[in-house]
Formats: sequence, C-alpha cells, structure tokens
Amino acid sequence: MKLLEKLPQEKVLRDPIHDFIHIQDQLILDLINTKEFQRLRRVQQLGVANTIFHGATHDRFGHCAGAYELARRVTDHFAQYYASKDADDGLWNPEERLVTLAAALLHDVGHGAFSHTFEHLFHTDHESMTQQIITGDTEIHQVLLQEGPDFPNKVASVIAKTYPNPQVVQLISSQLDVDRMDYLLRDAYYTGASYGEYDLSRILRMLRPYKGGIAVDIGGMHAVESYLVARYQMYLQVYFHPVARGMEILLEHILGRVKELLAEGEEPNSLVGPLLAPVFQPDHDLTVSEYLRLDDNLFLTAINGWQDADDTILADLSQRFLNRKPLKSIQITEQSAPHLDRLEKIVNEAGFDPRYYTARNDAYDLPYDDYKPAAKKPRTQIELVLADGSHRELSELSTLVGAIKGRASLDQRFFFPREMLDNGPDDLFTELHNDFKSFIRNDTFIPGED
Amino acid sequence: MKLLEKLPQEKVLRDPIHDFIHIQDQLILDLINTKEFQRLRRVQQLGVANTIFHGATHDRFGHCAGAYELARRVTDHFAQYYASKDADDGLWNPEERLVTLAAALLHDVGHGAFSHTFEHLFHTDHESMTQQIITGDTEIHQVLLQEGPDFPNKVASVIAKTYPNPQVVQLISSQLDVDRMDYLLRDAYYTGASYGEYDLSRILRMLRPYKGGIAVDIGGMHAVESYLVARYQMYLQVYFHPVARGMEILLEHILGRVKELLAEGEEPNSLVGPLLAPVFQPDHDLTVSEYLRLDDNLFLTAINGWQDADDTILADLSQRFLNRKPLKSIQITEQSAPHLDRLEKIVNEAGFDPRYYTARNDAYDLPYDDYKPAAKKPRTQIELVLADGSHRELSELSTLVGAIKGRASLDQRFFFPREMLDNGPDDLFTELHNDFKSFIRNDTFIPGED
Amino acid sequence: MKLLEKLPQEKVLRDPIHDFIHIQDQLILDLINTKEFQRLRRVQQLGVANTIFHGATHDRFGHCAGAYELARRVTDHFAQYYASKDADDGLWNPEERLVTLAAALLHDVGHGAFSHTFEHLFHTDHESMTQQIITGDTEIHQVLLQEGPDFPNKVASVIAKTYPNPQVVQLISSQLDVDRMDYLLRDAYYTGASYGEYDLSRILRMLRPYKGGIAVDIGGMHAVESYLVARYQMYLQVYFHPVARGMEILLEHILGRVKELLAEGEEPNSLVGPLLAPVFQPDHDLTVSEYLRLDDNLFLTAINGWQDADDTILADLSQRFLNRKPLKSIQITEQSAPHLDRLEKIVNEAGFDPRYYTARNDAYDLPYDDYKPAAKKPRTQIELVLADGSHRELSELSTLVGAIKGRASLDQRFFFPREMLDNGPDDLFTELHNDFKSFIRNDTFIPGED
Amino acid sequence: MKLLEKLPQEKVLRDPIHDFIHIQDQLILDLINTKEFQRLRRVQQLGVANTIFHGATHDRFGHCAGAYELARRVTDHFAQYYASKDADDGLWNPEERLVTLAAALLHDVGHGAFSHTFEHLFHTDHESMTQQIITGDTEIHQVLLQEGPDFPNKVASVIAKTYPNPQVVQLISSQLDVDRMDYLLRDAYYTGASYGEYDLSRILRMLRPYKGGIAVDIGGMHAVESYLVARYQMYLQVYFHPVARGMEILLEHILGRVKELLAEGEEPNSLVGPLLAPVFQPDHDLTVSEYLRLDDNLFLTAINGWQDADDTILADLSQRFLNRKPLKSIQITEQSAPHLDRLEKIVNEAGFDPRYYTARNDAYDLPYDDYKPAAKKPRTQIELVLADGSHRELSELSTLVGAIKGRASLDQRFFFPREMLDNGPDDLFTELHNDFKSFIRNDTFIPGED
Repeated sequence: MKLLEKLPQEKVLRDPIHDFIHIQDQLILDLINTKEFQRLRRVQQLGVANTIFHGATHDRFGHCAGAYELARRVTDHFAQYYASKDADDGLWNPEERLVTLAAALLHDVGHGAFSHTFEHLFHTDHESMTQQIITGDTEIHQVLLQEGPDFPNKVASVIAKTYPNPQVVQLISSQLDVDRMDYLLRDAYYTGASYGEYDLSRILRMLRPYKGGIAVDIGGMHAVESYLVARYQMYLQVYFHPVARGMEILLEHILGRVKELLAEGEEPNSLVGPLLAPVFQPDHDLTVSEYLRLDDNLFLTAINGWQDADDTILADLSQRFLNRKPLKSIQITEQSAPHLDRLEKIVNEAGFDPRYYTARNDAYDLPYDDYKPAAKKPRTQIELVLADGSHRELSELSTLVGAIKGRASLDQRFFFPREMLDNGPDDLFTELHNDFKSFIRNDTFIPGED
Repeated sequence: MKLLEKLPQEKVLRDPIHDFIHIQDQLILDLINTKEFQRLRRVQQLGVANTIFHGATHDRFGHCAGAYELARRVTDHFAQYYASKDADDGLWNPEERLVTLAAALLHDVGHGAFSHTFEHLFHTDHESMTQQIITGDTEIHQVLLQEGPDFPNKVASVIAKTYPNPQVVQLISSQLDVDRMDYLLRDAYYTGASYGEYDLSRILRMLRPYKGGIAVDIGGMHAVESYLVARYQMYLQVYFHPVARGMEILLEHILGRVKELLAEGEEPNSLVGPLLAPVFQPDHDLTVSEYLRLDDNLFLTAINGWQDADDTILADLSQRFLNRKPLKSIQITEQSAPHLDRLEKIVNEAGFDPRYYTARNDAYDLPYDDYKPAAKKPRTQIELVLADGSHRELSELSTLVGAIKGRASLDQRFFFPREMLDNGPDDLFTELHNDFKSFIRNDTFIPGED
Repeated sequence: MKLLEKLPQEKVLRDPIHDFIHIQDQLILDLINTKEFQRLRRVQQLGVANTIFHGATHDRFGHCAGAYELARRVTDHFAQYYASKDADDGLWNPEERLVTLAAALLHDVGHGAFSHTFEHLFHTDHESMTQQIITGDTEIHQVLLQEGPDFPNKVASVIAKTYPNPQVVQLISSQLDVDRMDYLLRDAYYTGASYGEYDLSRILRMLRPYKGGIAVDIGGMHAVESYLVARYQMYLQVYFHPVARGMEILLEHILGRVKELLAEGEEPNSLVGPLLAPVFQPDHDLTVSEYLRLDDNLFLTAINGWQDADDTILADLSQRFLNRKPLKSIQITEQSAPHLDRLEKIVNEAGFDPRYYTARNDAYDLPYDDYKPAAKKPRTQIELVLADGSHRELSELSTLVGAIKGRASLDQRFFFPREMLDNGPDDLFTELHNDFKSFIRNDTFIPGED
Repeated sequence: MKLLEKLPQEKVLRDPIHDFIHIQDQLILDLINTKEFQRLRRVQQLGVANTIFHGATHDRFGHCAGAYELARRVTDHFAQYYASKDADDGLWNPEERLVTLAAALLHDVGHGAFSHTFEHLFHTDHESMTQQIITGDTEIHQVLLQEGPDFPNKVASVIAKTYPNPQVVQLISSQLDVDRMDYLLRDAYYTGASYGEYDLSRILRMLRPYKGGIAVDIGGMHAVESYLVARYQMYLQVYFHPVARGMEILLEHILGRVKELLAEGEEPNSLVGPLLAPVFQPDHDLTVSEYLRLDDNLFLTAINGWQDADDTILADLSQRFLNRKPLKSIQITEQSAPHLDRLEKIVNEAGFDPRYYTARNDAYDLPYDDYKPAAKKPRTQIELVLADGSHRELSELSTLVGAIKGRASLDQRFFFPREMLDNGPDDLFTELHNDFKSFIRNDTFIPGED
C-alpha cells in the first residue's frame, strides 16, 4: 500500500537547537510541505512572552520539527538496540516508526494564534483541532492517506492517546515526551534563560521501551531530575511571568470588548473583517478551514486597526497592547483574595472600568506526579529500570523529585492599570493612588483590617 | 537642561546574544518604551529568510537593543581607558556617550516590513525614515527633546553621517560598526548557521578612538579578520540564499500585481484596507504616521486575504507565498543573461505570465574595501594601530583581508515556477519542461548555441 | 604605603569559562607571576576524575584565576551600586577590594597534588597550607607586603574566616561564594556534563551586601535554586563517581604500600627520590618549601617508576593505576556493611590482599543547610532580600531548596578487584567469583542470611 | 577469523566537543584499554601552550578519541548512503570500517611528551613510532591481531599512507581529515579562542567517497572555507604564539644543556634517572618500550629536580621554565636576520650565554595547497563535486581559498631574556638594555645602518 518511500538522500533543515532536522521519508517531507503545516510559521510558540523576553520570537513550526527530530532519534535508537523479536517481548516494534514520526510532527498542528487566550475565550481546544486537521479535508489528510487508508486515524488516535501501543502514545504525550523535551530547550534558547537546559542526549540514550510504555534506565536518573527541574524553573521564570500575563489579559479584554460591541450591534465586517468574523459569530463552531486562516498576524493587524476604534475602551486597550503597556499586578493569597473588591473600587474611582482594566489570574503547574488512579487525569509516571530489569517510580529513588512530586506551583495575581502606581507631579489622583499603594507590600496584596 | 537622569538601579533585558542589555539611563528606557520603538517587535530582522532557516524569527527590536548594548560597552571602555584630556588629543569625549547610545538604539527605527522588497517597490528609504522619526512628531522626538532642544537633530545627524565627531559616526556606521557586529552574531544565532561567529569581546577591547575616527589595535587584527570572513560567509550562505530570494520575488510580484489591479480600477478599500491603502496611493509620499502603522502582520494578513482574490494571478501568488512554494532559480552569467528570453518564452508557453512568474535577480556584496576617494560612496577603511602609534590599513597587514578587499560577491539568478522542473506522471507539459531543463547544468543556465 | 598601582592598561587572560580574566592591578599581576601561583598549573583540579571524564584535564591555576575574576566582577558591581556612604550603613566599603581580590586569587594556593588522597594519608590541610604560603617565606608574601606590612595577614585571615568584614569572608567562603561559583561551571565545561550550569550572570547581579554579609535579592531566587541543584547534581554525577573513587583508592593504597615498605627498611632515596622523600619521613611536618615542590607530575612519575618495583603489590597497583584498571565497587548500606568481611574473605581466597585490594569508601555531601548554631561547623545560610529590605532564609521561600536543605547525599561503597566479576573461559577462580557475584544485586551488596 | 564482535550495547565516553564518543566494537574498546593508549592521558595535546592559554590542558587521549568518533560518523554515513554495489563504482566499501576506525583512534599513539621539541632534539618521529607501536610487541598489537593476522599491518599502512584504498588514507590524513577536524575544534574549545570553530556537522554530511579518495559536495564549499580559515587563524593565533615558543625554546635549551653536561661526564643516573636515561644515551635508538615510559610528567619532574642542579645555567633555565619566565622575542625579516649577531653580542655582554639564552625560531605553515606533482610532499587537494558529478579543485570556485592557496604563513623571531627589556631603578645594565631596545620598533628588529 505504501506509496511514499524513503528519500534517496536525506534532506535537512538547519535547526538552532538540534543542529539539523533530518528528513528521511517522503511522507514527512510532504507533510511539512502542506499548507496546514506551513501555517505554523505564523503562530508564535510563546504568544506574547516575547514582550518580556525579546528573543523569544520562535514559532510552532520550529517546535514541531524539533519534536519530530527527537522522535526520529529515539525510534532509530530503539530500532537499533531494542527491536522486538517476538510479539510479546515488550520491545520496540519498528513498524511503529512512521506513525510515531507523523504524530510527533503533527502534535501541535491544531494550535492557533495566542492559544491560551483564544481557547479560554472561544471554547476551542487545540488537541481536538489537531485531530480534525489530521482526519478532515486537508492536505495533511491527503498525504497521510498515501500511507494507508487507516493511517490518518492511527495518527489521530496517538494524539487522542487511544492508540493501542502505549510506547508510541507516551513518546508523544507523557511527563517525559518529545513535546516537552523539545520545547524546554527551545524556549530556553530563544528567551536566553539558561534554566531550561538539561542533558538531552543522555536522556535519549537512556529511554527504554517496555510492555507498559517508555521507562528510563537508572543511569539516566540524574538527567531526568535535571529535566524536571528545568521544567519547574521554566514555569516559574518564563511561563508564569506576571508581565506576560499582564499582556495576555489585555489581549483577552480586547477580544472580549469586541465580542460585546458586536453583541451591542456593531457591524462585524467593518469591525473584524471577513477572516476574523467567524470567530465572533455567536453559536458558531469554527470549521477547520475557517480555523486554519487564523494566525498571529490576523489578530495583531486587527488590533492595529482597533487603535482607531470609536469605542474608547477598545482603542485604549489596543494601544496599550501594541505599545506594550501591560497591566501591572500584585500577588494575592487565599486570605486576601476575597478582599479584592476594595482594590477594584479604587481602580473604578480612578476612572478605569474594572471589567476591562482589572483581572484576577492564577498560574498553576504541577511539575511532576506519580500515577494516581483516582485522579481526574491520572499521569503516566516516570519509571526507572534497575540492573535486574525491575522498575521503580522515579521519586522513590530521587530525593530531588521526591521533593517536587505532587507539589503544585501556584501564582495568584490581581492585575490593574500601571497608572495606579503613579505619583508624578501631574498625577490627578494622588490620593487614590496612595490609597491603592497602601495595600501593597513586597509585591503582595495585604488587605489590612476591615 | 538635561531632564532625564541616570537610573538609580540599572535595568536589564535578557538577551540571548549578549546575555543582558544593560539600561542605565532614563533616556534610553524612555526611548525603548515609545510606540515607535515597540513597533520594531513587529518587523522581522531577516524578512522571509525564516522560510529557509526556520529558526530565524527574530525581529528588529532585539537587533536595535543589541546594537545599543555594544555601543554602551564600547563607550564605557573608551571612557575608562581613552578619555580625552584636552580637546585636541584625539581621544574619546565622554560627553558623546548619550548621543552615541541613542543613535545606536534608534539606527534602524525607520525600518519597515520586508524593507528590501518594500523600498525597491515603493521608493522609500529606511535611513531617511529613521531621521524623520527622530525629528518629526513622534514619541521618540519628545523623549529626545528632554535631553536638550538640539538633541534630536544631533542624533539624526549621526544617522546621516554628518555629525562632526567621526568617532561617533563610525561606531554607528562604518565597515566595523555596532550595527554589523550585532546582526552577524544575532543572525548566526537564530539561523543556527555557525558562520557568523567571531570574537566579539576581543574586538570590543581592541577598538581605539583617534582623531579620524575608530581604529583597531594591531592585537585585534585576527579578530577583525574573523569578523570580515564571518560577514562574507553570512552573505553567501544566508543573505544571498536563492530560496529566500525566490520568496522575496513572490512578495514583490504580489504587491506589484495589487498595484496594477488598483491602477486598473479595483476598489482600494476592499482590496487593501485602510492601513495599507496609503502605500498604494499614486504619487503619495507616506507620512511618518502612516508609515509607522505598517508592520509584517499587516502585509501577511493582506496576503492571507488575497488568497481568495478574484484575480487568479494574485490569488495564486498569495497561496504560493503563504504555503511556501518559492520560485526556483538557476545561476546566470554575463554571457548567458542576454539569452534569458528563451527561458521566458518556454515559461510563457507553459502557461505562466513571465512578468509575475519569472524574474532576474542579482545579489551583490562587497565585504570589505579600503578608502577610495573617487568611489561614489567611499568607505571608511579599517585601520590598525601599531605599537608606536602609527596606522596601517588592514589589508596591508592581513593576507586574508588582502584577498577579500575590493572583491565583490555576486550571485545572478533567473527565477521561474518550480513546475518547470516537474516531470511526474501527470505532467501535462513534459516536452516543454524537458526543453527547459535542457538549458540547465550544475545549477547554471547554459544557453547553448543559437 | 601602597607601592603597587593600577595597571595603565588592563591585561587579560583568555578563559574558556569567563571569556576573559581581567587584571587591572599590578598586585594581582605580580601574584600570578609568583612561582607559588605558577605551581598551580601542575596540580589538576579534579585529580583522577579525568580517567572517567577524559575532558576534565583542567588545573587549579584556571580555577583560582576564575574565582578571582568573579570576585572582581562582584566587587566592581558593589562599588558602583552599593558603595558605603557612612561606616554604619552596612553597604560595601570599596577599600576592601584588593584584599578580596587577593584572597579570591590565592584561596587554593595551598592545594597539593591529589589533595583528597594526600591530606587523608599524610594529615596535611590545604587551607592551613594556603595561610602558611601567604604569611611565610614566599614570593607571594613579598608581593603582598608591598601593599602594606599587615596586608599578608589580612589576606590570610580572610582564608581563615577571621577577617572582621563578613562580606569579604562570605564572598570567598560560604554556601554561595566565588570558589563554588567558578568550579561548578568550570568542572561542567571540562567534563562535558551539562549538570553544573546555572545562571551565573544573574546571580552576580543579584548579590547584595548587608551588615551581616552577602544576601541575594529576591529576584535572584530561581538562579540560586539552579545553582544549588547544579551543585547537588555535580556531586552525584561527577565528584562521587564510583570509578574515580576506584582510582583514588588505588592511589591511596600505592602510597600506603610505599609507606609500609619504607617502614620495613627500604632505602628512601631509591624508592621515592629526593623531592618526594620528605612526604614519607616519619614524624616530619612538611615545610612550605618542601610542600611547594610537590605536584602531580612528581607523584605520577614515581608511580611510573614503581611499575618496576621488586615489591609485587606495589608494582601491580602502580600498573593498575597508570593503565587505568580501577577497583570495581558495589553499594553498601548500614545494614549490609557489617557483613563485608564475607566479601573480603572471598577476595583474599582469590589471591588479593584485602588491605590493598579492597576498601570501604563513603562519599558524603550536604548540598545546602541553613544556619544551625549548635552544629560543629555552622553554615552561613543564604538569605533573600525582599522589596521592603527584610530578609528571609532561602528555603522558606523556595520549595526546591526546602526539599534539599539539610539532606545529605551519601554513597557508601565497597571496592574490590575487577577480577572478582570475571567469568571468562580462562578464569581460574570461577567458583569463587560466582560466589562473590551471588552477593550483588542491582549494583548493591545483599548479604543474604547467615 | 574475527574474534572480536560488536558490543551488545554501545558504550560511550562523555566528550566536551562531540558530546559522546560512541564505542560499538569490542576491538575499539579493547584498544582504548591498552596501556599504550592510556599513556596518551599523560601527554598534553598542545605541549606548553597552556602557559599562554591556561585552559588548554587537554591531552592526546581526548583528541584521539575525538578523531575516532569523527571517523565513525563519516563511515556510518558512507555505509548508509554511499555503499559500494560493485567493486568498480568508486563508492564506499563497508568492510573498510574497522581498519579506518582503528587507524583514526591510533593515529597519534606514537606521540611523545613535548613532541615538537623532543623530535627536533632527539631525531625521533612520532609517525614512525606509531607504526612501531602498532606492529611491535605491544598490547595494541595483540588486540589488533584478534581481527586477523594481517590487521596490524593494514592499520599501520594507513598511517604510512601506503594502504591501497585512498578513501581510508585520506580520511586519516589529508588536508581535510578527521585528525585536523577534531583538533581544530578541540584546541579552540580548550584555549577559549573562538577562531577554530567551523561547521563540522555540515562538512561531515557533505563528504563524498569517490574512486580517487574523498571529495566534498559543492553544497559544503562554504563550510570547508570556514574550516580552512579556522585552521589559518589557529596557526597564527595559537600554534605560532611567540610566548609559547619562548617556553619551548627554554625547554629545548634545558634538554640541550643536560645533553652537554652528560657529554662532559656528569653521571646519568643522578642527573636524569633511569626512565629518562635512554633518551640521552649517545647513539642509542629508543626502543618502543623505553619510549612508552616517557610522558610529560617525567620531563616536568626532571626539570623540577634540575632547579637544584649544580650547573647554574641548567638550574636557572629550569626555574625560568617552571615559574613561567619565557624568553621574549621580536620579529625578524630576511633582511634583518643576518644582523642578529649584534643583538647576541649585547645579550652576551649583559651576562647571558647566547647559546642558552637566545634563539632564532621560525614558525611556518601552509594552510592549503592544491596538488603539485613536483612538490616534495605533494598534497591531496580538496575537490568539490558538482551536481553533474564532475570535480573541481576547491580554489577554482572559492575566492577565499584562492587567496590562501599556496601562501605560507611565516613568523620569524629572535628570542632573548626578558631582562634585556628591563629598565627599572635597580637595573645594572641600563645602558646595554637601552642599546638593545634601540633596535626594536613595533615588535620588530630594525638593524639600522652599519
């Protein structure tokens, strides 16, 4: 059945993280050349984070190519050293190679512009979109079909984690998968933060296929520790960055304001244009082809235009966003959160509509956890293989991981306009601003006594 | 007069190339926070080159910040070791610091989206635009004014190379300036090409102010050699890349086609939208404020829309561009160039309008030259300072530079649709394509005999 | 009094870790040029570890220069931003600069060849030797004297931690000092292990002098976390490496055997030569000048010669050491340790004198602890400075450090000849070897039941 | 015949340059474990250069392992993409793998301590010694024999360049071989000089076997340019470094002085010891086993002892060497060289025997040349493969290489004691020193008129 073959000579893409992305199959080359995959060049990997880490301009194309390359290296290594001899030996079946590579390459193909904000606001889901792109009326689907009529479904089921072979599923999606292994290094490289670095080549050498999925040889324990610490640090240092969140909230409020204006009767075509219109259409589920027209440029161009909007809130928020005037923030706690209305009240008095100029935002991450059958989404735990072949869960042997396991990182914040902290000579609201600031100590909201 | 002071505590931007950008002056911080400077985040440094080197997504914001940082390091070093004692000693006047830093930061602020293509097509000039932004009605102008009423003009004159102090001018613009020193390293880092690397820190230590400008201590000769070789290599490997030029030509033809459609009477607002309209308005000089609304997103969003254009050429070119189907190319020579009409004719017969589907494109660079008074734009040559204080032009002492000096790199190419090289089973034009290919040997056009 | 001045132009040493070591004072240059400091070129930083990580050939000269460079950067930063205005403000006194730099440069000048082994066997102490070199009859002492008659004592008291200014003492010796900051990066670079990397430049920017010593701005918390994790990982991965310890034990047994042979009456001059003789002289305290003749070459040359020794144990151990045949090892536990005599007995039966061919060796490290007044050597805890100037001990705010704090890493091992694991066709002791191996499971000694 | 097999699981050595050295064959593992190969740990790669670049402490073990690793990567790539189908197709014969790997690993096994100086003084030759070690009574020979009775000779003939397959010979020794490819990167990494870097992975991908040896695909031209420029720069910046040569001359004069003292009747055993004695024995050809006892430590330990020599010249030179007081130098030219006797005379008058305290030393390198049949040692030129399979010599297509081709780098110098440049308050020879210095301008000897 296979219509697509190995390339006579491998092709390479220069990659700053992995040096070269090696393309050895016509299928992979054809997938990269589809318009759906090329669209990933127009979707930034870290959304607005480049307003804080100006180097972080990288896009999802590079990340997907990188995840593919790691999958290629792992499956080659498995084929050389851990190829299955009989069906039941729990080793690697080399016939899983292409489905693994395709799934790795395509795992984020459904990501849209500013996904975090977008999905929150418009109730879409990039994983489901990825599956629709793979199985729907797309160039990607056509390419995959050439490998076999059921091949698109197989790739989609890997994304959905319903594929029968747990080794394939875990390589693409687990607590130690090619997705995370790539994006930690890539995000570290582009932000210039050194925190995301860990010993990739050692981990790749230490992965071991077994009946239940992918484990790690005990010799790789410290490398995995570094990887988890890297992940923990990147969350706290980069992904949780309060200034980036202050930009995201602006974006969310801009789109929310547009939604409201349309609900109030503004003319969609002049406000949002034809490509963006479906997004705001009430009770409309975006089609795959509508979705695929959306990219970062489209949103940023709309915001560029909205700077001239008649609605002063929309115009002001759009200017703040494009000119990088993020909302400021302070930490809040379970204790102080119920008292935020005091702050909102002052912000309101200072002339800012709290619906658009304040927000409460929680950043949450659980860096590692072992398998908890009762959990809503039980995690695939990381298992170590000892010399005699027996397995132990990582945190049993690693002090460091034991300390992280099951402990979430949480950063709860209240956002507000930076004007609230002003106190310059021309400040019209000196008293209000002083009042506001009296609630802040060490970057934290201290409500004081009632 | 100076209203803006040193910051009480320096601020830093994390930078993947220079680790940190150190901001020590309120003036610099305020310039970065202007909307004109923030716009640079939306203009990619290498235009379409990231369609070849997918890592090269970096923008002009990072480059300008980097050029500033190098200027800061050099002027600090000069102030510490080469501060002028009397007006005539040819050493560094520390009062030039701020004008130098501002000029370094702002040197590219007039760059627009896809400058190379844009300037060629619309006869604008980013250096002149930079000066207009500095001296016109902008936030940048307002910030600069606080340093003194003549300060904007001083900064603009550095860009214009008319500033009286040649040391300042040469730091910003010469064959060894902070602009090139930054972009070579930055482009190398982001493309993943190792060619652009050289020993920056050694060069920075070896720069010497003198009456006529900036020279280099003899101890830095080899570092400067490496820098020039890096430059030479980056031109040949990255900036001249034929596939990137194949993308640029698509872009140029898209915009050219729009121009033509408008000339033929298409309605501007529906075809190009309000922000882009001024660009296409005949006999209209773009105002600074119109110009500053233009960014990469705007063009890419327009092209996204043009995929649905009624005009099939515009729609097709737009799809090729967004889906990364660049024009292919072959090398041509002075001898073969006159015979290109033969190829154009075949392309035409195969159904492609040669005005939109073919192009001749020359990439040219002169990596280094010494001062030639008779040249149209005489270059500031690189001078070495010997132990006894005497000067020698670089190529007199360096074999390697002697070999490069005055020798241009030139890559002349003819571009055409990739279909011309097809020969698959469904190829309708097999004979034409074979005919076309018979003129190509070793990536070069061989016209054969008449 | 000061006879030595700033250099007119700084000198630099190229350094692979810090790019350049900047030398700005005649005093520092003169110290580097003393014969005692030059000797550090002949003492490897990691002793025998290069037999495992073959890249790790670096010497103590580079490390001392690196520690100096970090001290220079920190004190420059302090002088610029945290210079004391009155005696009691707890800020940095710029007059402490030179004593800090000299102490950083000289902090390891008393290190001898294979210090770990040497000090253990011959009851010397490199810190005490460092002080003797600084205050004794040496070129270093002469250079320091030119700064003032009491200057050598001041520098020595920094090493001894009795210097009155706790800022100076903690920069040189604490849980976050220039010594560790340099060696982690340097050892990581040379071994090729990526574990030792952390964000040095951020830490350097975040250090804050205060009355009680050196604290870290809260903004540097994550960088310090990375540093401590790096330290933890380097201990487990590099410094505790069981194969390196297998080589060290060979070295210790070689020197122990020589000691015994001399005690039995062997002629010192022919067995150890004039330079090494003082080391083995019973009841002799090494003089500074004797000590300074010792370097790695001397020991390795002696071992080279001992390969031909009449004593077969000495000859055999020497050959094993030079030809890299380390003792093998297994982990032991508190429970299993008392039963090691069983293994020793089998080794003995297989023809190896357990005194020279087996060993028990514990590797121990406590990566971080807070201040414990009751401890034998209370540690200077790492303190974070909040926005309002208040302090918090690091582990109070860092989950990660909270997990490490006070928890020692311990690796207890039993070493034996690799022959015990053999089972080749020519194995004369198959049964004994099988017996021996029956006690090992997953690299661990399992004594089984009696 | 083959007794040694592939390893069931590959072993790796961590390497800072190539990340991992992959060992897949029992033969390679056994070769590394021989005592002759382990000796390379005790021979520094760059001799005394670490007295200038203090980071450059690396040894020949790492370089040999690195050259092996490159050979492994190239031959694997060849086997995958260019495996020969019939004897005459000029492609790669996979059966050449092991002889290539063994030759790469062993190519420098005959290098001794401070080879440059040693070979010059004692008329030995490391290439010939390498062949003797491979074919003589050594552990290496025994290991190689297991691959076949003629295998040692085959490996030796690769070193001797008489092996019939030119592909194998050129991989090990040509102007683009695994030896140079490794040492340029390695020396750059350890010195911290960035000059030696080039795009290794691209070159490895672009190598092409052909009937006449190894060529490079045209796509790799710029990478090869960078490699040659790197080589050129490393020679000028590192290998020619005048201070390192000032140290080498000290070493040469020390050994020369010892030779002379022995000739004058000094007792060899007390002056040089048993291991070094054969070196100085008149008319004695070193045996392989004598040679293999020599390492850096032995020479440095001897010099350590000679500091106490009765002969004041030997003692003084030894102290200068160990305490890093190199001879100083100035450039000379063909014109000025004949007048050096004037300088020597002044040195003599200042109390330094010119035979031991002055020297003339020429550093010479020819970075690249094409094949010149008439040359004494004709070089294997680097050939590029065009798209149609035709070949062109590199400099025909590369401007940069055209500029370097056939042009030697030459640095001629005169060395003398640093005291000749002194002029301090205690200078006893002020007049003589001033006289001496009057001949120097811009680091060059200007003899002036007679």
